[in-house]
Amino acid sequence: MKVFRRAYLALVKYLEAAASFISDDEVESLVRTLEQVYRDGKRVFVVGVGRSGLVGRAFAMRLMHLGFSAYVVGETVTPAARAGDLLIAISGSGRSAAVVAAAEVAKSLGVKVVALTSYPDSPLSKIADMVVSIPGRTKVSHEDRWEVRQLLGLHEPLAPLGTQFELVAQVVLDSIISELMERLGIDEEDLRELHANVEV
Amino acid sequence: MKVFRRAYLALVKYLEAAASFISDDEVESLVRTLEQVYRDGKRVFVVGVGRSGLVGRAFAMRLMHLGFSAYVVGETVTPAARAGDLLIAISGSGRSAAVVAAAEVAKSLGVKVVALTSYPDSPLSKIADMVVSIPGRTKVSHEDRWEVRQLLGLHEPLAPLGTQFELVAQVVLDSIISELMERLGIDEEDLRELHANVEV
Amino acid sequence: MKVFRRAYLALVKYLEAAASFISDDEVESLVRTLEQVYRDGKRVFVVGVGRSGLVGRAFAMRLMHLGFSAYVVGETVTPAARAGDLLIAISGSGRSAAVVAAAEVAKSLGVKVVALTSYPDSPLSKIADMVVSIPGRTKVSHEDRWEVRQLLGLHEPLAPLGTQFELVAQVVLDSIISELMERLGIDEEDLRELHANVEV
Amino acid sequence: MKVFRRAYLALVKYLEAAASFISDDEVESLVRTLEQVYRDGKRVFVVGVGRSGLVGRAFAMRLMHLGFSAYVVGETVTPAARAGDLLIAISGSGRSAAVVAAAEVAKSLGVKVVALTSYPDSPLSKIADMVVSIPGRTKVSHEDRWEVRQLLGLHEPLAPLGTQFELVAQVVLDSIISELMERLGIDEEDLRELHANVEV
Repeated sequence: MKVFRRAYLALVKYLEAAASFISDDEVESLVRTLEQVYRDGKRVFVVGVGRSGLVGRAFAMRLMHLGFSAYVVGETVTPAARAGDLLIAISGSGRSAAVVAAAEVAKSLGVKVVALTSYPDSPLSKIADMVVSIPGRTKVSHEDRWEVRQLLGLHEPLAPLGTQFELVAQVVLDSIISELMERLGIDEEDLRELHANVEV
Repeated sequence: MKVFRRAYLALVKYLEAAASFISDDEVESLVRTLEQVYRDGKRVFVVGVGRSGLVGRAFAMRLMHLGFSAYVVGETVTPAARAGDLLIAISGSGRSAAVVAAAEVAKSLGVKVVALTSYPDSPLSKIADMVVSIPGRTKVSHEDRWEVRQLLGLHEPLAPLGTQFELVAQVVLDSIISELMERLGIDEEDLRELHANVEV
Repeated sequence: MKVFRRAYLALVKYLEAAASFISDDEVESLVRTLEQVYRDGKRVFVVGVGRSGLVGRAFAMRLMHLGFSAYVVGETVTPAARAGDLLIAISGSGRSAAVVAAAEVAKSLGVKVVALTSYPDSPLSKIADMVVSIPGRTKVSHEDRWEVRQLLGLHEPLAPLGTQFELVAQVVLDSIISELMERLGIDEEDLRELHANVEV
Repeated sequence: MKVFRRAYLALVKYLEAAASFISDDEVESLVRTLEQVYRDGKRVFVVGVGRSGLVGRAFAMRLMHLGFSAYVVGETVTPAARAGDLLIAISGSGRSAAVVAAAEVAKSLGVKVVALTSYPDSPLSKIADMVVSIPGRTKVSHEDRWEVRQLLGLHEPLAPLGTQFELVAQVVLDSIISELMERLGIDEEDLRELHANVEV
């Protein structure tokens, strides 16, 4: 194989390098908001299109396992959002039209909006009450990216389109789950209790 | 147009004719179970594959609007089922492997299983605690079906595959929603309150 | 049961009454466009939110069974739309923000847009190249609706929210499938060939 | 924050450590099969439940961007599978009932089945024509896992349930995309061409 193993290691290195671009303060704000929502019995909604939407779904599923009232915008049983609820909006570019539109509607309802994006100046970020910056292509320096391409010996970038953004967002959100487990005193057995047992 | 309007009217006639094949007792059993689940704060799960799954989703969404804890098997935030919960399994043939498997698992967990099917002797029906028989191709008499084809002047059947089953199931479930609204004292304004307001 | 059977029959009557509000010319335009898309190997996309989205999915599934390249906006493998493709946008009110936004984007790409809606003057209708008017609450006369309520002996309307629109849209689209089968010379066996055989 | 950053780094270390448990031969077999499917115009189906299903969807989306006929089992427009097609079945335990059932049906149709699993002796692996072993909890040694917990200073495991399996599977599949881009001569611009442009 020409590329597989180098691509794998390059993605791991990217995830490692990304750690220093993630803000403790931003993550702490999101975690505190999630704790508050949990204790107040409010709802968490996630929204994203394409692969960012899948990252959001993976997070919503774990929140449900933790005992949150978590919903994915656009799925069947997603109810009305109310003031005091939380919307987590995921968009690398911060420009996905459907995500921006959902954030605007949520904001107008008194829902707190958190943006996970690589662009703190994007339309989505401007609507959001909080931003968690996720390093995507533009956040790790161009030199960095060039080294990565050199490492791969390719003219093509490391991985196409939003792959890096999506992977970093996934690991950030999974790590937030661990943080919430610790803070809320929830252990793996509790998660297992809520995990779907009738599945297709 | 050669077929459109005759097909439309034939489907309406089919729905009308189907009414006399629907059992008040079977529907009453399902409605009572739903009332019980609602009052006990238990969960309702729906499962189906293909277009039957879409009929199930449409019903789950309305149950959510009514204030039920309703879930679609296979969606992101669907939690564990417990004894006392209800599974509504929709399969015209009663043989969809994934639906039968889900019903078996649910049964083993102490979940009550209701089958919506055209085949009261099918594998799904045998697992189920209750069956609501929905006339599909096999339930309205062959003569009936032949007349319908004659009406259309076609060698082809009225509408392909499970269309009739799916439409009758949809109208039965929508009518159960009206019955539940009456019994639970819920009006349209209540439904509107819970209807998703952040949508993609 | 107090309401079930009357609601069922009232919905059937509604479907029957709706037939005279459906325009042959509008349906013929949609059918011809679908034929053209089929013969040119172009793609059909459907979009809708909530239960209208489920109606769209049910139609897209049948189009796939007929051999169309059919996709649901927002599902995993939905590719880029191109000039000459077709978007079928379903919204009773013609105001669902995500549907209107999708229609606008599609229009700008040279995609032909068909609106299924009860409101021919709605934002969606104004964007659309073609409208297929589907009688919802506002299209069948108020007197009509009142009679229906009288029939039910309820203060509540016949069925909540967009139920009537969704059912009529479903039967219209299923009848268009029959029309397409006739025109394209496709029989039920052909549909069965393409029907998903690995299912969850 | 007590856990967030340590969990993030532990997941990155896990991904790094996992690399030496991934078999070049197994990955090469999958890549060659994918190349063959691409060149023969055959279809790729992915199936998984829960978060494994989301990993599969993310892969299917990229395959579609590459120009594959890729489908997700259970989505609306997923057609029949045929001999010569490929099913990629993702299950950490290799025991998810719906995934095993789908693999069995696919096998009986002459579809080649690849299992991504941590258990090469599982029911899924026994059905599969090929296995790509993905280190989950059981594959990296217990000592390894203990060190990771020590690092976190937690009694709880690093991340709950299948998180590690899912992340490694995601990075493996994303790296396979890079390998396929190289082999098939597809660049990022080609992917962008096919990326959904009408989105909700």
